[in-house]
Parts: sequence; structure tokens; C-alpha cells
Amino acid sequence: MLRGIHPLLGPDLLHALRSMGHGDEIVIADGNFPASTQGPKVVRADGLGGEALLEAILTHMPLDTYAPAAAFRMAVVEDPDRLPDICRSYQSIVDRLAGPFVIAPLERFAFYERAAKAAYIVASGERAAYANILLKKGVVRPEQD
Amino acid sequence: MLRGIHPLLGPDLLHALRSMGHGDEIVIADGNFPASTQGPKVVRADGLGGEALLEAILTHMPLDTYAPAAAFRMAVVEDPDRLPDICRSYQSIVDRLAGPFVIAPLERFAFYERAAKAAYIVASGERAAYANILLKKGVVRPEQD
Amino acid sequence: MLRGIHPLLGPDLLHALRSMGHGDEIVIADGNFPASTQGPKVVRADGLGGEALLEAILTHMPLDTYAPAAAFRMAVVEDPDRLPDICRSYQSIVDRLAGPFVIAPLERFAFYERAAKAAYIVASGERAAYANILLKKGVVRPEQD
Amino acid sequence: MLRGIHPLLGPDLLHALRSMGHGDEIVIADGNFPASTQGPKVVRADGLGGEALLEAILTHMPLDTYAPAAAFRMAVVEDPDRLPDICRSYQSIVDRLAGPFVIAPLERFAFYERAAKAAYIVASGERAAYANILLKKGVVRPEQD
Amino acid sequence: MLRGIHPLLGPDLLHALRSMGHGDEIVIADGNFPASTQGPKVVRADGLGGEALLEAILTHMPLDTYAPAAAFRMAVVEDPDRLPDICRSYQSIVDRLAGPFVIAPLERFAFYERAAKAAYIVASGERAAYANILLKKGVVRPEQD
Amino acid sequence: MLRGIHPLLGPDLLHALRSMGHGDEIVIADGNFPASTQGPKVVRADGLGGEALLEAILTHMPLDTYAPAAAFRMAVVEDPDRLPDICRSYQSIVDRLAGPFVIAPLERFAFYERAAKAAYIVASGERAAYANILLKKGVVRPEQD
Amino acid sequence: MLRGIHPLLGPDLLHALRSMGHGDEIVIADGNFPASTQGPKVVRADGLGGEALLEAILTHMPLDTYAPAAAFRMAVVEDPDRLPDICRSYQSIVDRLAGPFVIAPLERFAFYERAAKAAYIVASGERAAYANILLKKGVVRPEQD
Amino acid sequence: MLRGIHPLLGPDLLHALRSMGHGDEIVIADGNFPASTQGPKVVRADGLGGEALLEAILTHMPLDTYAPAAAFRMAVVEDPDRLPDICRSYQSIVDRLAGPFVIAPLERFAFYERAAKAAYIVASGERAAYANILLKKGVVRPEQD
Amino acid sequence: MLRGIHPLLGPDLLHALRSMGHGDEIVIADGNFPASTQGPKVVRADGLGGEALLEAILTHMPLDTYAPAAAFRMAVVEDPDRLPDICRSYQSIVDRLAGPFVIAPLERFAFYERAAKAAYIVASGERAAYANILLKKGVVRPEQD
Amino acid sequence: MLRGIHPLLGPDLLHALRSMGHGDEIVIADGNFPASTQGPKVVRADGLGGEALLEAILTHMPLDTYAPAAAFRMAVVEDPDRLPDICRSYQSIVDRLAGPFVIAPLERFAFYERAAKAAYIVASGERAAYANILLKKGVVRPEQD
Repeated sequence: MLRGIHPLLGPDLLHALRSMGHGDEIVIADGNFPASTQGPKVVRADGLGGEALLEAILTHMPLDTYAPAAAFRMAVVEDPDRLPDICRSYQSIVDRLAGPFVIAPLERFAFYERAAKAAYIVASGERAAYANILLKKGVVRPEQD
Repeated sequence: MLRGIHPLLGPDLLHALRSMGHGDEIVIADGNFPASTQGPKVVRADGLGGEALLEAILTHMPLDTYAPAAAFRMAVVEDPDRLPDICRSYQSIVDRLAGPFVIAPLERFAFYERAAKAAYIVASGERAAYANILLKKGVVRPEQD
Repeated sequence: MLRGIHPLLGPDLLHALRSMGHGDEIVIADGNFPASTQGPKVVRADGLGGEALLEAILTHMPLDTYAPAAAFRMAVVEDPDRLPDICRSYQSIVDRLAGPFVIAPLERFAFYERAAKAAYIVASGERAAYANILLKKGVVRPEQD
Repeated sequence: MLRGIHPLLGPDLLHALRSMGHGDEIVIADGNFPASTQGPKVVRADGLGGEALLEAILTHMPLDTYAPAAAFRMAVVEDPDRLPDICRSYQSIVDRLAGPFVIAPLERFAFYERAAKAAYIVASGERAAYANILLKKGVVRPEQD
Repeated sequence: MLRGIHPLLGPDLLHALRSMGHGDEIVIADGNFPASTQGPKVVRADGLGGEALLEAILTHMPLDTYAPAAAFRMAVVEDPDRLPDICRSYQSIVDRLAGPFVIAPLERFAFYERAAKAAYIVASGERAAYANILLKKGVVRPEQD
Repeated sequence: MLRGIHPLLGPDLLHALRSMGHGDEIVIADGNFPASTQGPKVVRADGLGGEALLEAILTHMPLDTYAPAAAFRMAVVEDPDRLPDICRSYQSIVDRLAGPFVIAPLERFAFYERAAKAAYIVASGERAAYANILLKKGVVRPEQD
Repeated sequence: MLRGIHPLLGPDLLHALRSMGHGDEIVIADGNFPASTQGPKVVRADGLGGEALLEAILTHMPLDTYAPAAAFRMAVVEDPDRLPDICRSYQSIVDRLAGPFVIAPLERFAFYERAAKAAYIVASGERAAYANILLKKGVVRPEQD
Repeated sequence: MLRGIHPLLGPDLLHALRSMGHGDEIVIADGNFPASTQGPKVVRADGLGGEALLEAILTHMPLDTYAPAAAFRMAVVEDPDRLPDICRSYQSIVDRLAGPFVIAPLERFAFYERAAKAAYIVASGERAAYANILLKKGVVRPEQD
Repeated sequence: MLRGIHPLLGPDLLHALRSMGHGDEIVIADGNFPASTQGPKVVRADGLGGEALLEAILTHMPLDTYAPAAAFRMAVVEDPDRLPDICRSYQSIVDRLAGPFVIAPLERFAFYERAAKAAYIVASGERAAYANILLKKGVVRPEQD
Repeated sequence: MLRGIHPLLGPDLLHALRSMGHGDEIVIADGNFPASTQGPKVVRADGLGGEALLEAILTHMPLDTYAPAAAFRMAVVEDPDRLPDICRSYQSIVDRLAGPFVIAPLERFAFYERAAKAAYIVASGERAAYANILLKKGVVRPEQD
């Protein structure tokens, strides 16, 4: 553990977040997501919920203001307009920690394709359905250290 | 995730517990324990509390009935008679899931020495002080599957 | 060995099943299947029969209810309508442990192609002919732990 | 699988047996043996019984006629004179396949010490208690191919 | 060495043959074949002749009866009708150990292309020219153990 | 880079500091220190000065209040009473960021021996002589995150 | 450290530069560049500025006089004609150490594509925006040693 | 060192040459060639001249008499008819040790493309310009041992 | 294969012999020797006889003239004065290729101890009993290339 | 190659020298030295002479002025007072490039023991006898860059 660094970020996740640069993407995958077969390196976070991880990551990682969208969630299959409670909660964490970014829905297989190009997938233990979220890292400016 | 298996046990921790045999030992280390310098292989469990991990592990792993003691905690430095709340809680989890085993105190450096010979150390995110516990695996009998 | 976990699942197979997510596929290959040249990671299970392995895996892994089919077998070459005894037995294990899924036949080379995209191949010692089966993992819900 | 070679011997176990020479030792460990912490390389054989493995190994590997004893079992703790049924069965397999060798008992911790110096440990799924056996490889003569 | 197993098959070659399944291919390459640049894993057999290796392999590995041809040799460049003595010898070993299979000639570069897709290449020390042979593994039936 | 984390800490150094626990030690070695032959894992920091690294590390890592001393420097050979300017500067950084700890001098070869048991050595580019410092990590309490 | 070699070049960066040949390219990436996801091997230089690294590298590495351009910078998004101060500074270092080469601007994503084919990316800690520069190595002639 | 084997051939280069077969190619690259980014495995020979290496290699490796050409050099850019002195010297070594083979010129980028498909690149320290040569291995006949 | 180099020496054995220096030792082990558990790196030579390997090695490797003895064989257990035929044959190969060296007998376990300190063990397929020989490499002088 | 860096120093040797610190030792071993069995990491320099390597290394690496001796050679066996020509030449290179250091003789086995504790061994191709030299690195001061 370290002073001033969110305690949920272990050595491997810290290493991952610090290695990422502007435009790199990271997925917080729920407990049912096929994390280890998509291709990106996987950081295990078994037992941790999606909201706690999102809060920990956004405490230190800004989202990308250059891209049209910087946060994505998996849309509900056959009910794309529904917004699951967990995603509503994700949005309020984004609002609070990252700024005015809307988490955009992506159809299930489109989400898989984008996740396959991410830099990392964090395999959480989140039990809620459709609790996957993909984040695009922004620029860290000197005054933010 | 799998049906009938405690969800906190990720792939690496399941592999570790399943590989262990009669008499092998595993440490649940708190967030300040020097887990990676003691020697044994480390399974990271950042963000997880000690009680949740103990409950998950004892759900599937029996303690050793052949040895004089099968669970150990680190004694409080300069106050060896004190029983921290977290350890009281550990004892009740052991009582409930493992049977009549008393968690024996070990002086801090004696605990390090024993941890150095364990099969695995689980590096938890437990924030309470003196929240380290060492468990000795028992025999699994056919009727326990 | 562990309490409450099927004893046929060794450390590597448990790690594999726990790492898989919704939609990932695993092949139980018979003793003549070219397991190590298809591409996926191989878990050796020499000496174990296909039925025992299927029973062990389905004890803990649900099948995918989202996909049109979630279990496949290799069809008999030049006699695609024949249902080998071993496959009839596989079907009754699926019925008992996984629910109303029909094991769909796939032509030999189509089976190879699908196996090549699986997450894992379990190389069993099953001696019966056409005793290969491919399973697609489903979602594990919190009430199933 | 291969013609004329016992089917229980998978690629890794065949490699192990073929690499061993005169005087090298191999342990068939039961399902509760702490196989992965003794030191020697481990060949997993989850789900296989001790008798089947012993039969498979002795089909191809001779025992050492130069040493005073070439097969050892773990003695029952606190009842060293008892011969468990599984060991009686082991003895009859040795009699039939290896020749006039008596399986000698070794006290539990003496058995661990000797196992720690073996070339390989085969981690079987044998459920019987005290079902560990250690074998010392003999010389293969040209007429035995 | 092991009883009942051809002594020319060392640990690595045994491992390779045992790992192969129905339809997998292996090349016995002569001493001038570019074994290490074709792609497949290479098992070195420097100093061994092609006939001895073919005899050792066919003692334990059946050829594929499902495919139109299951053994191939490299045709003589600019004299495709010529049958080198070594190939005539290979044919008689196939006749004796594998059954009624004709070793089919393949043009030099077609042979390279097929070898590049094999499971293994055995790099022999055979000095005769055009002494390369590719074998396709068949099914091992229970009565053949 | 990350918000709220000192920018001099790259991925490997962050990983190292986060992996360390109570009592683990880390050396900031000057440019002439034999960092790669002492044994501990080395994190390269070529081109960075000792003061900048010390400031970056102490921003997030507390020193050990349990031990009699938690910071050590290499004493000047043949002039052990001299306090080099760089060490005076190190002391003021410790005063400001870590609290009332005195950096204790260690004779050159005693310093090497202690460095050999550290968890990590940071190989800086510091050009000043005798600019090596060893730090012992303390406990991070929940209120310090 | 070594005599006559720029001290900012640590073992890994020296190894990289010495391994490169005529026409190979290296990127000095600023602190926000997605260095680890482009493909090339990464040399970490956290905490070092772009100008210091450029000076260190050009002290020992000549630029390519055969190619139409041998140094490239990332153009400002939506303001391609602007020349950031840091790039003006880079140009003066190139003028002084490498000779008459103009640092050519490349559109952001074209720069990423070219960086993906470089031999190495040096991940600096440069905080200025648009501070990425790509260098193409020239021929070293005997009289330049 | 070994009796009867050219002393310039170290363990790695001997291993490379011995592993190559009929038709495999090896490049002797000059000191400015981008050896490590072309793809083939690299054997370092820093400090050695091209002529010495060519002599050492051709002492033991025959050229390919089946191919239309078996030795290639990089043609001078913008002056393809010029034959550099070093290449004239290479030709005389080929004449003396390998037989009547003409070293054929290849345009610079065509040479790179062919080098990228070679089995090995030897990175020499040759300082002359255009001192790269690519050799195609021939058949070794029994009488040549 | 290579011109002028004994064809039995494959890439790995050539690499081993070339890496060895004055005083390093190599064992040619017979088919029953426990080659892989003594410690040294093993070069497999399954199927090759001891005499052929000894001839191949001594063709290129001189024995040590500085040491009191430079070749050793395993003495016959319980009959140390007997000189097995294979050893008589080894002696005549040494006489012919290495010079006036007497192969000295070593008691079985003393031979194991010395073999454990050798640089390499060549695991031959020699079937004769007591066919192990240990060789100490000598100095190669320039006139011997 | 790089400007201003001795061309004989390839990537691996540069990496080694740059990684070494004050007091670390490096051996330039002649062609008969048992370089790969002493323990330290080996940098191959086959074909290069000892004088050229010594000159290249001392161009950039200072010797240790703190130690009683900083350069050692192997004394002639049974004639310790003889100074071989190659060592006389080494001394003049040391005089010219490193300053007033006397190369001290060490008895053959004492030299081996010290070499076994060195950081690196450079395996040269030097053919002269007794051409081994061990160097102890000194401090590089800022004014020496």
C-alpha cells in the first residue's frame, strides 16, 4: 500500500495504468466476461465490484477529451434502451470523478471487438449483469500530479 | 466464475489451493505484510478483506487434524496477550467453517519465519493491523467432495 | 483436493474453467484427437474417460443459454445419422446436469475448425470413437455459487 | 496414444519415465499428498487411482535389483504395523509385474524426505489413505526392449 | 530406457509421438533437410539413420487409414520416376510394420510446404539423398495397446 | 502518468513500491553503485538525481516507526564523520516528507551487505559521491490513502 | 557509467542504440504517449525530459543522410502550422549535433503508424505537449568512432 | 575452441551453421546493417571483419549447387555497376573455398527483403561500405565430413 | 551437417564442446545412466553408441595434459578389477585419437559425484553395462585448428 | 555502431560495462578459459584478441583506485616468475589508458576462484597462453563523461 494512492490498485493494476498513454483503453470486465480469451493482458481482480474498481481507476486516470466518446458499456441484448442500475451507478461515478462524459452503449459483439483492442482487461468479480465498462485514457497535465 | 465454488476464489487462488496437500500451509497476509519478499509464491488479492478471504478459503479447504495446531496469527508486538478484533472475527469464522481449532499466536518474527516456508501467501487488502493468518491444510476425505 | 469441488478437476483444469467466461468454449477430446496441434491451450487428462470428465465439468460450469446451441459432437464420418453410444451417454449427462440442451453434430473438419477457436482442449484418455464434445460456457448467476 | 504402450502414460509421464536412469526414484502420490511443495518435478494425474498408475508404470519400468529395497510406502501414523488394503493391492501388482520386491514401510516424515529427493512425483487422484508409493528404477537390458 | 518401448525413441520423441493424434503428421528428415526453418518443432536425432528411425516410430505409431495417402517421400529433382534405394527400403519397412500403404512421391517444394504444416520434424543424420519421409498418424484402437 | 501520483515513479518503480510491505527495504543507489551485482531486483533510473527520487518515493512511502532506524547512508571511507552535502540534502527531504528520522551512517561494506538483502535497488544517475540511501518501509494506515 | 559516453544513456538504451543499424528508427515519446501499446520494444526513461534525451542520443547516433527526411515530430491536432516551443528546441539540438536536418511534421495518427514500425520507443517523462520525436539512424563511418 | 574447426566460429555460430540445411540462407552483415530488426535470429560478431567471417563459414559450409545463384551482395545505391573492393575480396574467397559461384548483386531494398527470410544474420563489425553478403547452404555429402 | 566436422555432432553437442574450456568435463553416459538428475545440462543422443560418440568427440576435443588423469570410467560394482569389453574399446579409441591417456576407474558413487560437477552429460543409447566415460578437456593450440 | 564509442564493444558488452559499478569485476578470458562453467554471465567475443578487447574496455572503463590492486593475470603454472609477452603487452595498454596500475599475478586456481565472483566474463578468441586478465571497475567522475 502507498500513501495517497487508492488502496484497491495493486502492483499489477498500478503498473498497467501507469504504462498506458493517451488513447489507450482499459476494460473493467464483470465476473462473466470472457476476459482471458480476448487478447489483451488481463489483470485479475476477483472478488472486487465494478463500482469500487471504477472509482479507484478514475481517482488517478483521466478520460480522453480528444475523442468523441471515452467510456463505453455493453448494451443489453434485445433491449438496447434499458439502462441497468449498475450502469447508472457507473455514470454517476464518471460524473463525479472524470467530468462530463456520457458512457456510450455498444452492442454486445461490438463491445467484444473493441475490448479485443484494449491495452488491458481487469477481470473483476462484479456479479451484476451488463456491468462491463471500457475507458479511454486522456492526457495528464503537469498541474494534475 | 463457477457453480458451487466460492466466487472470491479466482483462477490463481483456486489453482494454489487445489495444488496444496496435507500439511501444506497458506498465509492470508494483510495489506502491510511484506508478502513478496518472504519467498513463497504470492497470489494478489488487493482490495479484499481478510475475513472474506478466510471464509472463501475455509469453504473448500479443511484444516489439519494431525498437527498440534493448524491456524496461526501474528501476536501484537509488545502486547502479546491482546486479541485484536479482526482475529476474534477470524476465530469465529474458523469455528463455523473448520471446526474446533484455536488460532495460535506467533511472535512477529517467528510468524515471518513460518510464512517463509508456506506454500503460498495471499496478499489481501485488509486494512486492520495484525490481520495475518496462516492455515495448515488437512486431509480431504471422499465423503467431503 | 478440495471440499465441495469435483475431485477430477485438477489445478490446471480448475484454473481453465474459472478463467473462462460467457461464450468461451472448451473441448473434451478423446484419446485419438489431435489436441496439441489445433492451437488452444491443452489440459492433459490421460487415462480419464469422457463421461467422467463431462460430469466433472458440468457439475461446476453452466452452458450458454444465449446461443442457439451450446454443446457439439463430432459427427460419424460417412454415417452422419448414427449416434454413437458414448454420445448418447453424453446427452444424458447434459440432460441431468446442464438442462435442456441438445448436443448438435458437426462434420469432422467443421468440428476441428471450431475446436481451433476454443479456449481450451482437455486431452482425455477416452477410447471410444467419436467421443469428442465441445461445450460453450454460460453465465453464472449469484444464486448459483 | 501409441501401440504397445500403456494408455495411461501420457506425454509428460512417458517423458519422465524415459528420462530416468538406474537408481532414479519416482513417487506415486495419493490425492492428499503435498506433491507440489516437496521439490521434484510434478506430473499431474488427477482422477487416476494409484493401482492403475502403478500397473501402467511397472509395465514399462523395471525396479532396481542392485539396491537393498526398491519400493517404499508411507507407514500408518501411530499404527506402523497395519498394512492398508491399498498397499496390499500395490504389493500384488509389484509381485506380478516387477518381481520379488517387498514394498518397505517408511515413517511419514522419512517418506517426505525421500520423496523430496525423487526425480518425479506423480500426483494421482487416489482417495485411499496411505496410498503413496516410491519406486526406484532398475537397469533395462537389451533383451527387455 | 523402458521395457517394451523401442530404445531409439528418446524422451522428446516419445513425448512428440504420444502427443500427436489422428491426422497429425511427422517428418523424418535426412541430414541435409532444412529442419529448423520450416516451422514445426524439431526433435534432433543426429547420427541416426532414416531406416532405424522409421522402424522405431512405426513400431508404436499406426498410419492413417482414413486419408487417401498416409506416407510421402520427396521426389528426385528432374528425375521424378526414379525410386532411390533408401525409399525402397522405407517402403519395405512400411509394408512390414504399418500395412498396405504406398509411400507417395511429392515434388521437392510441395514436400517442403507439407512439412511446414507437420506437427514435428525429426532431424536425423541420414546421409542418403532424398531420404525424407512424412507420416500421417492413424487411430489407435484399444486392442492395440 | 497518473493524477495524484508523483510523475518520476514509472511503472516498474510504482510496482516495486506497491509490492513492498512493512519492513521491506529499498536502496536509491548513486551512478557508481554496483547495483546489478548485489542480488536484489534493480529498477533503472538512469539520468535521475538522488534527491528527486527520494522526494518521489517519500511522497508515497512511509518509513518504519517500529525499527530503531529506518534510513541509512554510506559513510565516507576514511572520514566517517564527514556529512556530504548530498546527504544533508537527503536529511532535509526526510525531515519534510517522512518525519523525525535520522539517516544513520553505515560503513561502506556494511552498507553493501544490507543492500544485498533489500527488496529493490533503484539505480539512479546521481553523480555526487556517497549518495546512496537505504529506506525501510513503514505501515500505511487507512487514513493515509 | 562509462568514460566518454553520455551519462543519460543507461544499459538498456545503450544496448538499443548499439543494436540499431542504418535506417532503423527510434522514438523519444513524451509522458502521455501510448508507448507500450504500439508494438516496438520500450525503454523506460521516466522522469527525463525530451531535450536531455535527444541530446544524449544524438551525441552518439548519426541521422540518416540517405533518406529524404530523418527526423519527425507529431503535428499539433487542428493547428498543423503551429511549431511548439519544445519542437523548436528539438530543432536547435538537431542543428547543433546532427547537422542540417529539418524535423518534419507528421499528422497524429500517421505518427502513430510510423512509431509502430520503429525499432524502439523511449518512454520519457517529458511534460510538454506534442513533444514526440522520431529519429532514423544513419551510417557510422570509421573516422567517427 | 576445437581441433579442426575454424576458431572464429563460436558456440552460437557453430550451432546456427550446423542447424541449417539445404537451401537455408545466412547473411554476413556489415557493422551498419540493421541486423536486429529484419526478423531472423542474430549472431553477434562485433569486431570481426567480413572477410574473416566469410572464410570461417565457407571452410565448413558448402554453397547450394541446385539454385541459380547461391551468394548475393548488396548493390551500390545509385551506382549498381560498381564492385566495391570488399566484394572483390569476397569473390576471391568464394572462388578459393566454395567453387565457381558468382556473387550476384541485389538492389538495397531487395537485399533487405531477402535477408528478412534468411535463417540467421551474423552481425559483424566490418567497417567497409556495402559489405553485406548472403549465402545459401548446399548439400553436405558423406565424403566431405 | 558441415564439411570437416564429425557428422555425429549435432548443433547442441557442438555448442557444448565449443563452449567448454581447459579443465571442463563431459560425460558420455550409457543408456541406463541417471543423466537428467545429476545436475549438469544434458545433451540427448538416444540411439547412439558410446564408441561412436567417443570417436566423434575426440576427433575435435583434446584431453587435458595438465591433470594427473583426463579420462575416467565407472568401475564394475563388486568386481573392480574387471575391464569390460566396451571400456577396452574406449581405451583403444583414446589411444588412437587423444594420445597416451589411461582411462582411470572410479567407484560407482564416486563416478556419480564427479559427473555431478561436469559441464555436460551426453545421454547416449549405449546398451553395454558400465559404458560411462568422463573426459576432461585440454588446451587447443593454434596449430591444431 | 555509435559515434565516439569503441567499435569493438557490441550491444551486450556495452550493456555489461554500463551496468557494472564501483568494485565490480570483469574477466577477459582467452580462448581456452572455461568461461561458461565459472558462474558469471558470459559475453562471447570469439575471434577477438585480448589486447584489442582490453584496449576497447579501458577506453571507457576506469580502474578502481580504492582497492590495493585493480588488475590481475593468471600466473604461469610451475613458472610463476615468467611474464608472458601477451601480459607485457596488457601492462603497456593499462599504462597508456588506465594509469599507474600493476597487473598482479594470481595462481591458476586462485584466478578461477576470483573469476567465479566476477560480474561478467568476456570469452575472447585470444590464442596466446595465460592471456586472461581480470579488471576491477573504478568510479566515473562527472568530468570524465
